[in-house]
Amino acid sequence: MKIQVINGPNLNLLGRRETDIYGALTLGEIEAKLAELAKDLQCQVEFFQSNHEGELVDCIHSCRDSVDGILLNPAAFTHYSYALRDAITAVELPVVEVHMSNIHQRESFRHESVTAPVCCGQVTGLGAGSYYLGLRGLVEIIRERKQKD
Amino acid sequence: MKIQVINGPNLNLLGRRETDIYGALTLGEIEAKLAELAKDLQCQVEFFQSNHEGELVDCIHSCRDSVDGILLNPAAFTHYSYALRDAITAVELPVVEVHMSNIHQRESFRHESVTAPVCCGQVTGLGAGSYYLGLRGLVEIIRERKQKD
Amino acid sequence: MKIQVINGPNLNLLGRRETDIYGALTLGEIEAKLAELAKDLQCQVEFFQSNHEGELVDCIHSCRDSVDGILLNPAAFTHYSYALRDAITAVELPVVEVHMSNIHQRESFRHESVTAPVCCGQVTGLGAGSYYLGLRGLVEIIRERKQKD
Amino acid sequence: MKIQVINGPNLNLLGRRETDIYGALTLGEIEAKLAELAKDLQCQVEFFQSNHEGELVDCIHSCRDSVDGILLNPAAFTHYSYALRDAITAVELPVVEVHMSNIHQRESFRHESVTAPVCCGQVTGLGAGSYYLGLRGLVEIIRERKQKD
Amino acid sequence: MKIQVINGPNLNLLGRRETDIYGALTLGEIEAKLAELAKDLQCQVEFFQSNHEGELVDCIHSCRDSVDGILLNPAAFTHYSYALRDAITAVELPVVEVHMSNIHQRESFRHESVTAPVCCGQVTGLGAGSYYLGLRGLVEIIRERKQKD
Amino acid sequence: MKIQVINGPNLNLLGRRETDIYGALTLGEIEAKLAELAKDLQCQVEFFQSNHEGELVDCIHSCRDSVDGILLNPAAFTHYSYALRDAITAVELPVVEVHMSNIHQRESFRHESVTAPVCCGQVTGLGAGSYYLGLRGLVEIIRERKQKD
Amino acid sequence: MKIQVINGPNLNLLGRRETDIYGALTLGEIEAKLAELAKDLQCQVEFFQSNHEGELVDCIHSCRDSVDGILLNPAAFTHYSYALRDAITAVELPVVEVHMSNIHQRESFRHESVTAPVCCGQVTGLGAGSYYLGLRGLVEIIRERKQKD
Amino acid sequence: MKIQVINGPNLNLLGRRETDIYGALTLGEIEAKLAELAKDLQCQVEFFQSNHEGELVDCIHSCRDSVDGILLNPAAFTHYSYALRDAITAVELPVVEVHMSNIHQRESFRHESVTAPVCCGQVTGLGAGSYYLGLRGLVEIIRERKQKD
Amino acid sequence: MKIQVINGPNLNLLGRRETDIYGALTLGEIEAKLAELAKDLQCQVEFFQSNHEGELVDCIHSCRDSVDGILLNPAAFTHYSYALRDAITAVELPVVEVHMSNIHQRESFRHESVTAPVCCGQVTGLGAGSYYLGLRGLVEIIRERKQKD
Amino acid sequence: MKIQVINGPNLNLLGRRETDIYGALTLGEIEAKLAELAKDLQCQVEFFQSNHEGELVDCIHSCRDSVDGILLNPAAFTHYSYALRDAITAVELPVVEVHMSNIHQRESFRHESVTAPVCCGQVTGLGAGSYYLGLRGLVEIIRERKQKD
Amino acid sequence: MKIQVINGPNLNLLGRRETDIYGALTLGEIEAKLAELAKDLQCQVEFFQSNHEGELVDCIHSCRDSVDGILLNPAAFTHYSYALRDAITAVELPVVEVHMSNIHQRESFRHESVTAPVCCGQVTGLGAGSYYLGLRGLVEIIRERKQKD
Amino acid sequence: MKIQVINGPNLNLLGRRETDIYGALTLGEIEAKLAELAKDLQCQVEFFQSNHEGELVDCIHSCRDSVDGILLNPAAFTHYSYALRDAITAVELPVVEVHMSNIHQRESFRHESVTAPVCCGQVTGLGAGSYYLGLRGLVEIIRERKQKD
Repeated sequence: MKIQVINGPNLNLLGRRETDIYGALTLGEIEAKLAELAKDLQCQVEFFQSNHEGELVDCIHSCRDSVDGILLNPAAFTHYSYALRDAITAVELPVVEVHMSNIHQRESFRHESVTAPVCCGQVTGLGAGSYYLGLRGLVEIIRERKQKD
Repeated sequence: MKIQVINGPNLNLLGRRETDIYGALTLGEIEAKLAELAKDLQCQVEFFQSNHEGELVDCIHSCRDSVDGILLNPAAFTHYSYALRDAITAVELPVVEVHMSNIHQRESFRHESVTAPVCCGQVTGLGAGSYYLGLRGLVEIIRERKQKD
Repeated sequence: MKIQVINGPNLNLLGRRETDIYGALTLGEIEAKLAELAKDLQCQVEFFQSNHEGELVDCIHSCRDSVDGILLNPAAFTHYSYALRDAITAVELPVVEVHMSNIHQRESFRHESVTAPVCCGQVTGLGAGSYYLGLRGLVEIIRERKQKD
Repeated sequence: MKIQVINGPNLNLLGRRETDIYGALTLGEIEAKLAELAKDLQCQVEFFQSNHEGELVDCIHSCRDSVDGILLNPAAFTHYSYALRDAITAVELPVVEVHMSNIHQRESFRHESVTAPVCCGQVTGLGAGSYYLGLRGLVEIIRERKQKD
Repeated sequence: MKIQVINGPNLNLLGRRETDIYGALTLGEIEAKLAELAKDLQCQVEFFQSNHEGELVDCIHSCRDSVDGILLNPAAFTHYSYALRDAITAVELPVVEVHMSNIHQRESFRHESVTAPVCCGQVTGLGAGSYYLGLRGLVEIIRERKQKD
Repeated sequence: MKIQVINGPNLNLLGRRETDIYGALTLGEIEAKLAELAKDLQCQVEFFQSNHEGELVDCIHSCRDSVDGILLNPAAFTHYSYALRDAITAVELPVVEVHMSNIHQRESFRHESVTAPVCCGQVTGLGAGSYYLGLRGLVEIIRERKQKD
Repeated sequence: MKIQVINGPNLNLLGRRETDIYGALTLGEIEAKLAELAKDLQCQVEFFQSNHEGELVDCIHSCRDSVDGILLNPAAFTHYSYALRDAITAVELPVVEVHMSNIHQRESFRHESVTAPVCCGQVTGLGAGSYYLGLRGLVEIIRERKQKD
Repeated sequence: MKIQVINGPNLNLLGRRETDIYGALTLGEIEAKLAELAKDLQCQVEFFQSNHEGELVDCIHSCRDSVDGILLNPAAFTHYSYALRDAITAVELPVVEVHMSNIHQRESFRHESVTAPVCCGQVTGLGAGSYYLGLRGLVEIIRERKQKD
Repeated sequence: MKIQVINGPNLNLLGRRETDIYGALTLGEIEAKLAELAKDLQCQVEFFQSNHEGELVDCIHSCRDSVDGILLNPAAFTHYSYALRDAITAVELPVVEVHMSNIHQRESFRHESVTAPVCCGQVTGLGAGSYYLGLRGLVEIIRERKQKD
Repeated sequence: MKIQVINGPNLNLLGRRETDIYGALTLGEIEAKLAELAKDLQCQVEFFQSNHEGELVDCIHSCRDSVDGILLNPAAFTHYSYALRDAITAVELPVVEVHMSNIHQRESFRHESVTAPVCCGQVTGLGAGSYYLGLRGLVEIIRERKQKD
Repeated sequence: MKIQVINGPNLNLLGRRETDIYGALTLGEIEAKLAELAKDLQCQVEFFQSNHEGELVDCIHSCRDSVDGILLNPAAFTHYSYALRDAITAVELPVVEVHMSNIHQRESFRHESVTAPVCCGQVTGLGAGSYYLGLRGLVEIIRERKQKD
Repeated sequence: MKIQVINGPNLNLLGRRETDIYGALTLGEIEAKLAELAKDLQCQVEFFQSNHEGELVDCIHSCRDSVDGILLNPAAFTHYSYALRDAITAVELPVVEVHMSNIHQRESFRHESVTAPVCCGQVTGLGAGSYYLGLRGLVEIIRERKQKD
C-alpha cells in the first residue's frame, strides 16, 4: 500500500512560524514520524509540499495510477481552491484532509472547507497528531475498500 | 486515565438505521471496540448515550472532577445546542468531537458545528473509525498536558 | 392499523392559552375527536405529549416496530430540533406534520420547518381541523403503501 | 355551498409529466374525484385551470360574489406571483392552498410560498390527497364561519 | 399632448376591496377625475387596466408612437415584473410610477420596485392624489423635454 | 394653513453642485416658487435648511404646535437618520418626503429610506417638481384631515 | 406577591466556572441575596434551576396560577429555545430576562435573544446585580399592573 | 427534425429598441437567417414570440409531441418565471437557452437564470450569433440523442 | 460620587409623545425621581439632553475627569452612532445604557445597539424604571470598582 | 486569423475522469476536432492547457500582439480567479468562455463566473460542442470587428 | 497652495485615549508636524476638528473656493455619514482620507468606508504617519492637476 | 535597511494596459523612481513581480532573514489569496499594501482585501504615488521598530 502525503502553502515553515498555533515540530520532523508510523501500519509514504496550487494539482493527478490514497493538508487553499477540489474528485482516490489547528476556532474564513466535501473525512485541531490520526484513518479506509473488492 | 464517551440523540439506533450513511455496527459494538482500544492505550472508558440534551449537559458536568477527557458525538445537537457548548466550556476538560459521516457532504445545516469551536479538535467522515481515532487523539492530548504540568 | 399522535411543547395548554390563535378546544378534546375519527377510519390511535425534546425523540424511536405512522405537531421544535428531524428519518415511518395556526402568517422564524423535509407532508392553518385532515391523509398514505407491498 | 377549484400553470399536464413526483392521475381524474367528494360533503365544485397568471387573477375576482371558498393550487406561481396574492386578499374569501408534492423537499425556491400568508391554510405533500383534504378543510371552515354569522 | 394611464392587476377592484388601504374611490371615479385634470392641463388621457402582465407589456409597446408619456401603477407587478421593466426601457417614453398606499409602510416585499429605476420618478402614499400629482409631474416633464428639442 | 419646508444637508448648494443630477435652480429659487405656489393653494410656507441633524430634529419639534404639515427633503439623512425618523413620529404631523433625483437609479445605499415608513408619502425623481407636487399633496392631505374632524 | 426565579443550563456551575466572566458568587449565594432583597421588597421568591429545556418549560407552565411574575435567566437557551419563548407567551405573566455578562460583547450568536421579544424587559451585563435589578424591576411592574386593575 | 424557436417578452421590438445592446437586426431578420441555417442543417424551424408568459407556457406544452427540440430566449422571464421552468421540465425535450447580450455584464438581477438549470445549455453575449450557435448546438444534441436510441 | 445622566434625541418630548410606548412621565419628572433616588444612594446626578449627536459626544468627553459614571439613553443614536460609541470607549468610564421600551419587540432596526458592546450593561423595557434600575446598577459598579482599587 | 485555445486546471484529464459529466473525448481529441473546424473557418488555432493559474495568466499576456482572439475554458478558476479576469481585461482581445457541463445545474459555487463579465460571451452545457460553437462565435466576432475597422 | 486638514469626532482626544491604538501624540502635536511638513512642501495648511457632523459638512462647504484640497480623517463618521460623503462630492476638490489605525484589523463595522469611494485615495494603519503621507499624496495630486490645466 | 518590493499578477503590463485607470508609467519606470527614492531614504530596494501566486509566496518566505520590510501590491490576489495572507503572517515582517487605483470606487469584489488585516497599513488610489508613499511609510515603521529595540 502506497500513500502520498501532500502539504500546501506555507507549511514548509512549520516549526518556524507561529509555533503557538502550529507547534514546534518542523515539517521534516512530522514527515519522519509519519514514515515511522507508516512502517508500523505496513504501508509506504511519499511526501510533497508546495506553495504553488498548480504543482499540488499536478501532484494529485500523478497519484492516479501510482498510489492508494492521499493524506492532504491544503492549508490556505482549503478555503478557496476549487482547482484542488476538482483534482481530488478527478483522481477517484480516498483522500483524508487534515489541519493542525482547530479551524473552527479561528478567523471565520477558515470555517469553510471547499475541499472537505470531496474528501472521505477530515481531522482538525490535534496538532501534529492530526497527521498521524489521518494516516491511520486513511489506511483503514483503503483496507476496507480492498476487502470489499 | 479515565475518559467519558458521550453520544447524542438517535445514536442508540446505530446499526439499525440508515446503514448506508452510518454503517452496520451498533453503538454497543462500537463501544466494545472502544473499550478494547482503551485497554491498549492504557486508559479507562465509560459510556453514556442520551436523546435528552439536558442529560448530556448533566453528564458533562459530572465529568468535571472524575474524568480526564471527553469523546463526544453530539449528533444533531452539533448544529444548535449552545447549552452543550457552554457545558463543554464550563468543565475545562479536553473534548474531541467526532462524526461518523462526513458532515460537509450532507445537508447545509450540518456544515456548521456550534460545539467544535470549544473542543480541541474534530474527526469526521471516517465511520466508526472516527471514534477510534478520536480516542487516540484525546489520549495523546491528555498525556501531553500532563507532561506539561 | 396503529397510529401514534405526538404533540410537542406547550400544546398541553391548548384551549387555555392564546385561544384567538389556537382555538378553544383543549388537547384532550382534540384527542377525543381524533379517537372517534380513527374509529371511523378503522385504525387505532395512541397519544403522547411532552415539553421535553428528548422524550419526543424517545417516543418516535419506540414507534419503530409498533405503529404504522405518526401524526406529529412538533410545535416550537418545528423550527430548530434537528434531533427530532433525525429521529423521523431514523424510524422510516410515514409522518404527517400538522400545525393549527398558519405558520406562514406569523413571526418569520415560524416560516421554516426543519422537520417538514423528512415528513411526507404538512397540514397548516386549519385549527383543530389540521389534526383531523392530517390523520385522514396519513391513513391514506399507509393504505397506499400497504397496497404496493 | 359553492367552491371554486383553481389550478395554476402546467397542472394541465398532470399524469403525463414527472409522474414520479406528481403521480399518475390526470387533472381530469382528480377533478372527477373532487366532484364526488363534494357531493358527499354536500357542496358544489367548479373547476378552472390556466397557465396564464392573468386568467387566474380574473377567475379569483369572479369568485367574489358567486362562491363560498377557493381551493387553489398555484403551482409555480406559489413562489413569485404577488398578483395572485393580492387577488386572494381582495376577494375576502377563505382560500386553502394545496400542493401535491412536499415543497419542502424540493429545490430551495419552492420552500417559500408568497400566497400562503393570505390563505387560511395549506396542505402539501400528500399527492392527489392534498386536494381531497384541502376540500374537506375548506368546507369545514366555511361551515364554521357561517355558524358564527 | 397625449398620455396613457395604465393600471396593473387587481386595481379594477379599487373602491371595492380593502378600502382602509386604498380608499373608497373606484378606478372609474379616479379615471374621471384624471380626465378632468387632464383637460385643465390641456392634455388628453387614455385609460387601460389589466390583470395580465402580457397585456400591460403590449399596451406599453403600443404607446411608442402614439403617446407622449405614461402614468403607470404596476400594482403587484412593481415587485417582480422584469418584463414590464424592459418594456418601459424599450419604449423610451417618460413614465411616472404611482402607488396609492405608502409601500414603505407595508410588507417588506413591497419596499423594492423593479420598475422604478427605469421610470422618471415615483409618487407614493398619497391615495388617489398619487395619480393626480403623477399626472401633473408627467405633463411637466413632457413640456420641459419638448422645450429642449 | 401653515407648512414648514425643511431641507437637509448639502441642499444649500443646490444649483451650484452636480447640476446634471439636481438641476440648475438654487434652493432660494425653489423656495421662491414654493412660496408662489403656496399663495395659489392658500397656505403659508416657512423655510429651513441645515447641514446639522440636530437642528433638523429641533426644527421638526418646533413644528408641533405651530404648523399643519411638513414638506421634507432629508437628503443624505434619508438613509440613516433614525433620529429624524423618531422626530417625525413624535410630532404627529403629516409629513411628505421629497427627492429631486430618482433615488432608485443611483447608488444602492440610496434605495432605502428610513424616514419614508413614518411619512405619509414620497415624491421622487421629478427635479424641483418633486417639491411642488409634494406641497400640493401635503396641502390636500391636511384639507382632507381637517374635513374629517 | 410571589415570584419564581428560573435559571437555565450551566448556571448551577456559577462561581465555579469562568469566574472572570460570571463572577465568584455561586448560584446559591445569589439566591440567598435575592431572598433577602425579596423580603425588603415584601415579596416571596422561589428558585428553580435546570439544564433541561423541558423542565424549564414545565416550570414556567406551573407558574400560571401560582406566581405573579418570573425572573428568568435562560442562559444558552436565550439564543434558540422557541419552546421557552412559547411557554412565556402562554403563561401570560410578566417575565424579566436577566444576563450576568454583557451578551453584546461576546460571540455573535449571543447577540440575539429569542425570548426577549416576549418578556417585559431585559437586564444585562451587571453581574449578579442583573438579578437584583431584575427582581426590583419585576416587582415594580407587578405592582403597577395590580394598581391598574 | 423539427425545432421550435420561442422568443419572450419585448423581443418583438428587436432592431427597434436599444440597438447598442441588442444590435440592429429585427426579430424577423433573425428568424429569416435561422430558417436559412436550418435548411443547411437539414431541419425545420417554426417561430413563436409572445409578451405573455402564459402563451409561452402553452407553446412549450404544444411542442411535446410535435417537435424535437426548443431554442428559447426567455428574455426578462429568464429571471423569475418558474412557470416557464416547470413547463420546460414537463415537456422533456432538449431546450437551449440563448441571450443576445452578455447577461453577466448587466444589472445584477440578470446574472441569475431560473430556467438555465433545466435547459441543456446556454449561449450568451454573441448577439444574433447566440441564436445561430444555439440552433447548431441544439441540432447536434438531438442528433446525438437519436443515435443513442 | 458623581453621575452624569445623558439623554439622546427626541427624549425631550417624553410624556408628550407616544405615551403608549414611553409612558406619561416627562423627562423632567424622571430626572426629579432620579435625583431623589440619587440622594438615597448617596451620589450626585447631573442631567443633559440633546438632539445633537455632537453635543452628546462633547458632553461625554467633558465627563472624563469630572464624573464617576454615565447613565445613557442614546435613543435613536443607539442604532447608528459610532461616534458616540467611540466617545464612550475614549472616556474609560463605566456607562450603563437604558431604554424605556423593549427594543427587541419593536422594528428590526432597533434590535441592534452599536453602543451596548462598549457599555457595562443595558436595561431595557421597564419604562421609567429602566432609568432607576440603571442608576442603581451603575452606582453599584462604581462602588465595586472603587473597592478594588 | 489566429486563435489561442486555453484550457484551465484538470482539463488535461478530460475523457479519463467523470465521463458522465464531461463526456468520453480526451482533450487531444477535442483539440483535433477544433483544428479541423478551424481549417473550415479559415483560421489558425493554437492550444495551451495548464493547471497553474500563473501560466494561464502568462499565456493570456503572450496573446496580446500575436493572436486575434481567445477561446477559454477556465475550469475551476471560473469561480475565483480574479487574476485571470484582470488578464483578460488587460489584453483587450475578444474572449469567449466555454464550459462543457451546464454549470447552472451543478453545485452552487459553480453558478457564478468571475470571468464571464469581461468576456464577450459564454457557451455552456453542450459538451464538446461548447468548444466548437465557441470557436464559431469567436471567429464571427473577430470578422465583424475587422469589418468595422 | 492651500490645504484644509479636517478631523472628525473624538480625535480631539488623541494622545489621551487608547494610546495603544492611536499612539501618544496629541492632535496639536500632529498638526504642528503637519504644518512643518507643509512648509517643506511649500503649501499652507489650516486645521479644523469637530465632534459635530454638521460642522464638518459646513467646513467642507467653506473649502469650495478657498482651498486646493482636503486632508480628512472622518473617524467614526467614515462608516455611516452619507452627509459627509455628499459634501465631499459637492465641493469637487481632491480629498485624501486618512486613518491612524489599520481599520481592516479592527471591528467589522470599521471595514467599510462610505466616504472612500468619493475620495481620491486612502492611507490607513501608519499611525501619525498616515497624516504625513496623506499630505504628501494630496500635494502631489494637486500639482499634477494644476499641470494638466 | 533593505526592502523588497513585490508586485502581483498583471502588473507587468502597467503602462501598457488600461492607462486611464493605472496611469502611463511602466512597472520599470515606477521601480526606477522607487530606487531613487530609496537612495534618498537611505535604504536598498529589490524588485520582484510574478503572475504566479506560488512564486509570490516563495518570495515572501525568502524575505524572512534577508530584508527589513515588504512593499506589496498583491493586485488581484488582494481579494482571494489566503495563501499570500498566511505567508505575510508567517514571515513576521512589516508589510505595507499599496494599490494604484482607488479600490473602493471599483467593482464590489475589490472592496475587500484579505491581505490588509495582516499588513501594517494600506495606501490606495494615489496612482504611482501609492508606491512612493508606501515606501516612505514602510521605512518610517522599520526605523521606529529599530529604535524600540
